[in-house]
Amino acid sequence: MRTLLGNRLLGAWPSSNVSTSFASCSRRTLTTRPPLFRALPPTRTSSKTATTTTTTFKGQPLDKAALDGVLRRRMFYTPSFEIYGGVSGLFDYGPPGTALQSNILDVWRKHFVLEEDMLEVDCSILTPHAVFKTSGHVDRFADWMCKDPEFGDIFRADHFVKDVLETRLKSDKEARKQAVEEKPKEQKREKKKVKGQQSTIRLDDAVVKEYQEVLAQIDNYNGEQLGELIRKYDLICPKSGLQPTEPMAFNLMFETSIGPSSNSPSYLRPETAQGQFLNFAKLLEFNQGDMPFASASAGKAYRNEISPRAGLLRVREFLMAEIEHFVDPESGKTHSRFDEVKDIELDLLDRHAQLSGQTTVKRISIGEAVREGIVDNETLGYFLARIKLFMKKIGVDMHKLRFRQHMANEMAHYACDCWDAELLTSSGWVECVGCADRSAYDLTVHSKQTGKPLLVRQQLEIPRTVQEWQCEISKKEFGPLFKKDSKAIEAVILASTQQCRETWAKELLDTGKATIDVPGLGGVEVGKNLLSVDFVARTEHIREYTPNVIEPSFGIGRILYALCEHVYWTREGSDEARSVLSFPTAVAPTKVVICPLSSNKDFAPYVARLSKKLRAATISTRVDDSGSTIGKRYSRNDELGTPLAVTIDFQTLKDGAVTLRDRDTTRQVRADEDTVLRAIREMVGGEKTWGDVEKELPVFEGQEIDV
Amino acid sequence: MRTLLGNRLLGAWPSSNVSTSFASCSRRTLTTRPPLFRALPPTRTSSKTATTTTTTFKGQPLDKAALDGVLRRRMFYTPSFEIYGGVSGLFDYGPPGTALQSNILDVWRKHFVLEEDMLEVDCSILTPHAVFKTSGHVDRFADWMCKDPEFGDIFRADHFVKDVLETRLKSDKEARKQAVEEKPKEQKREKKKVKGQQSTIRLDDAVVKEYQEVLAQIDNYNGEQLGELIRKYDLICPKSGLQPTEPMAFNLMFETSIGPSSNSPSYLRPETAQGQFLNFAKLLEFNQGDMPFASASAGKAYRNEISPRAGLLRVREFLMAEIEHFVDPESGKTHSRFDEVKDIELDLLDRHAQLSGQTTVKRISIGEAVREGIVDNETLGYFLARIKLFMKKIGVDMHKLRFRQHMANEMAHYACDCWDAELLTSSGWVECVGCADRSAYDLTVHSKQTGKPLLVRQQLEIPRTVQEWQCEISKKEFGPLFKKDSKAIEAVILASTQQCRETWAKELLDTGKATIDVPGLGGVEVGKNLLSVDFVARTEHIREYTPNVIEPSFGIGRILYALCEHVYWTREGSDEARSVLSFPTAVAPTKVVICPLSSNKDFAPYVARLSKKLRAATISTRVDDSGSTIGKRYSRNDELGTPLAVTIDFQTLKDGAVTLRDRDTTRQVRADEDTVLRAIREMVGGEKTWGDVEKELPVFEGQEIDV
Repeated sequence: MRTLLGNRLLGAWPSSNVSTSFASCSRRTLTTRPPLFRALPPTRTSSKTATTTTTTFKGQPLDKAALDGVLRRRMFYTPSFEIYGGVSGLFDYGPPGTALQSNILDVWRKHFVLEEDMLEVDCSILTPHAVFKTSGHVDRFADWMCKDPEFGDIFRADHFVKDVLETRLKSDKEARKQAVEEKPKEQKREKKKVKGQQSTIRLDDAVVKEYQEVLAQIDNYNGEQLGELIRKYDLICPKSGLQPTEPMAFNLMFETSIGPSSNSPSYLRPETAQGQFLNFAKLLEFNQGDMPFASASAGKAYRNEISPRAGLLRVREFLMAEIEHFVDPESGKTHSRFDEVKDIELDLLDRHAQLSGQTTVKRISIGEAVREGIVDNETLGYFLARIKLFMKKIGVDMHKLRFRQHMANEMAHYACDCWDAELLTSSGWVECVGCADRSAYDLTVHSKQTGKPLLVRQQLEIPRTVQEWQCEISKKEFGPLFKKDSKAIEAVILASTQQCRETWAKELLDTGKATIDVPGLGGVEVGKNLLSVDFVARTEHIREYTPNVIEPSFGIGRILYALCEHVYWTREGSDEARSVLSFPTAVAPTKVVICPLSSNKDFAPYVARLSKKLRAATISTRVDDSGSTIGKRYSRNDELGTPLAVTIDFQTLKDGAVTLRDRDTTRQVRADEDTVLRAIREMVGGEKTWGDVEKELPVFEGQEIDV
Repeated sequence: MRTLLGNRLLGAWPSSNVSTSFASCSRRTLTTRPPLFRALPPTRTSSKTATTTTTTFKGQPLDKAALDGVLRRRMFYTPSFEIYGGVSGLFDYGPPGTALQSNILDVWRKHFVLEEDMLEVDCSILTPHAVFKTSGHVDRFADWMCKDPEFGDIFRADHFVKDVLETRLKSDKEARKQAVEEKPKEQKREKKKVKGQQSTIRLDDAVVKEYQEVLAQIDNYNGEQLGELIRKYDLICPKSGLQPTEPMAFNLMFETSIGPSSNSPSYLRPETAQGQFLNFAKLLEFNQGDMPFASASAGKAYRNEISPRAGLLRVREFLMAEIEHFVDPESGKTHSRFDEVKDIELDLLDRHAQLSGQTTVKRISIGEAVREGIVDNETLGYFLARIKLFMKKIGVDMHKLRFRQHMANEMAHYACDCWDAELLTSSGWVECVGCADRSAYDLTVHSKQTGKPLLVRQQLEIPRTVQEWQCEISKKEFGPLFKKDSKAIEAVILASTQQCRETWAKELLDTGKATIDVPGLGGVEVGKNLLSVDFVARTEHIREYTPNVIEPSFGIGRILYALCEHVYWTREGSDEARSVLSFPTAVAPTKVVICPLSSNKDFAPYVARLSKKLRAATISTRVDDSGSTIGKRYSRNDELGTPLAVTIDFQTLKDGAVTLRDRDTTRQVRADEDTVLRAIREMVGGEKTWGDVEKELPVFEGQEIDV
């Protein structure tokens, strides 16, 4: 039995600075995600080995600790409220992180919203109870948690089971390696060992196999099943040595209350999607009734993780960018611009490949993938290709991007197809964009709950005859009988599905009455004197339908972190290796650093004039006139990912020429101020590359040596 | 006695669609704002008459209802969760509102952050209890509320008193007008009247005067005093006719809980400022120790208003953009770029003018205002001038902008000076930007509470001798005595102020022991064997100081709404007046609408090519190929504030020429596609105006007639 609980938005990512042995085995090896709450998927680590085999784009082994050091030191991000001890799962972005995030979002907006004429909206984060009750989040958006009965420490139950079993397997492996000949101890005796020094314990081969099988499907257990595993294997808390309490559901939404009366519970949204669904009717009107169209929204969302481990990949407050593309389900979900992308090749890992245990991707053009039915429809395919182009624009390593299809049991019952764009990081393949076909689910449930139509009325050129179940209500008798409830009951009847009506028709025929499920009232019995349901033919001049939704959903923080890994490398220096973040100019936090060679006052007017001109061209610039050597300043700005440096030296005072340095090659050209400015403008505008500039302007050599 | 409660962020703004008589007198006539929680000021309506005398920039009377109709119809904004009945104080921005908001923020970022090299950060909205306990928000960020004892309706106590008194005064006025001769009734008898039809009641002249005096200082009463007023005047609830309950403090922060244990209370921030203060040490390091510098942040903030009335001016979730400029208090707060702005003239309403009852502003250059001491210092003056330039860029009517100085009793005890940028709207003068000199308050309290230094260490070129209280701790005896608490106690001692140390020195001298107030431990007694405090002279090579903060704080939603009023006007049409929103191109939601004259298929390739080219130039464009007449489509886009329209007609099919229409003048030019594209690029880029383009390209006449 699959659990309906626990959509894992943000994958666990073992922190480099968490030192307990319990945390050291925190990475999840396999995650399925209950699909109703798909928004953002969990981290999937394809295999443990991925961690150690990750390399920089220059082919060097990726030193994650060094990269994290750079990101912290240069204030890309920092734990929130650190001087107050911090709160796990909350991070502040410093200046380069904020600029990087905002540049990524800017590219996203131009690439998707502007390019596709999407209707961007900005909806409230505070959301009343009723909305998430309807969407299912109140009842099912939860994780299982359990508690150390002695110390009160709280664990996510699946993490707990996984961590303890992995610790045991690790211990077993070491025991085997040590070739200790003593017989495996009984599990009970292990209890005492845990508290003190960990010693290696060898397990039976059969036990090892059982543990491995449990771990392979760790995300498929519900609370009861996790409780059984805890008892069966006597899994104990690291501190107390006792079994934890029975797993309990913990809703992942942050709850608060609006206004002074305590009867208005509400939540911080866990996704931006619902606001877009609720505004569907207005958006359709704004779009002058035209279909298909897409809405889009970028904003904060929240998940009250039980115990997020350090790092940007699993956080409690995060930036999402979501698109809801509304499409006629009878259109075949074709896309008018599919031709523009059909030849783009993607690395796909489809459902069948995964079922047969493969991990190698298939490189195929999206046109072919749709033709062959690997990807369900053109619209979904169009977005997959567009996502790849977006990733390329912001600098993601194309060798570290793949599209993985959801397994049938990962998807919601209503979903047709779902693909995740995954980026390879030192924590394995991380799901950064979910791209799902959500059918008509959300619009249907909200419309049903509120009685407000969320549908499209299409004028038919040729009227058509449809056979369908029609309800007729005896209004005269309805009102006096149900009084103030009559409107609500009528609304439910009018908004009912064909399937529902068919059931009522049968009930009325069999028993003379039908049971109508009315929100807030429960099952209301309605006799055949009040309601008749008949299967009738009718000529339709206007067709009404609830659109299907195809939803690409971006986790900006995860993309940002993965990107940092993808563009990070080290340059061999004269003394030590130096870190570089080779962001493309489009997303680099700062485009140009201006370095006067020394603190000599004569440089000041040159610096001032150059900054002013760059600012006037709205090119993000910083001046680095610190006392450090020019080499150290270049290094600092390499770590900040600044693509260009302009240096003003003593020669400048004589001839007005300045040098322009390229971060990635460390090569330099030299020319007068205006020529260099034009070159910068052209590179920032994307018209020219460094290669072009180097061909046009005289190469300069010097300065780089004095680190 | 002034209340410490209740900073009113967002001024009340009577909704046009709230129909109860109670709401009709909801506008506040005078508001002071307790200064600790200054962020954003309340709406000040200079006088009731302002409402009716507001005119469009074309001099027409402003029809607020018509403007609101346009803003709703065109989906600039819409009540959040409307299909679920909505939640007061929460609004969603539709596509034009979202684009407008994002464009205003973009101008803000370029004008302030980029231009001034500010360090932009993005901090968590979720904030733990400890932070707001220190800042004072937990204890004092509250409004007084009271309840209808029968129906449970909750009112803001000051609003309640004001509303009832104003209703009585209104009734009195009508009674006098009707010249009804009956004697004013006793107040007791009024009770019954309220429930039924309101009849006019004449008051004694002395009572009228008393009521008016109360209303004039309505924001200066604390809860107890408001309770007294309710009893004294027998103010009764409109529904029950009973006196409400005694006013109680209601904290305006939304509370929630982080993680699964309920012992981590936290809040949604009511301002972005605290995150910037907490990161001060890291930001200073990022800035390589250079002073002065500014940080900046734009993001959502929250206030749990007791009963916000409809409208964008008082909301529960809002976008703020705040700058914290850190400056050496001994620098005289000069600003290196003050010269660039010194000749800019501002309309100032200073403290003295307000005290003497004046409402007319003084036009004066900021250079003179600082020289004369009207504005306290250059840095504050620099920001006031820059705020004016920002307002001008986004299209605010310069005749509807003034800078009002806070009265002494409006300011925090630590503040030196504070000015609000106010915009004139149909609700009177609305405070949209607060610009305060907050001294060293925030950094000091956080540093004191956490024991973490939030200060600047400045290398002195010439060492200086300072006399000060120094603490010496006997570490040998400290540790064994206080054990695990010793570090915390030491930290408090080391972080203590001079004043504190002086007190301890006295205590030690008088009683042989001093009481150290340690967070979490309370008062800890320390004997003179453990601690000595002496007044010693010492030569300082490095000076340490806590910077002062000058804080311009922008309420983007309020600016956005006021701007809509400022750019709104109506054009006399052939049939009816048509609404126009004349946004400057920089902030207009969409820059260009492309209109094919009819649905003729031959127009399609022209539309597609033009859109593609405009998109490639990242110029926000929409196609309006709806079936409406071209005149109706122009009207629709005038309401959306789209400055330019390109029309493709049958002549285009022959000669490739298209027309370009200017929203404000409705004049048109006609030229080939590329020429028109270049003109658009130049106008959007700000290089040319419509006037320039009209001089260069052949004028075209036609199309506009067929509305």
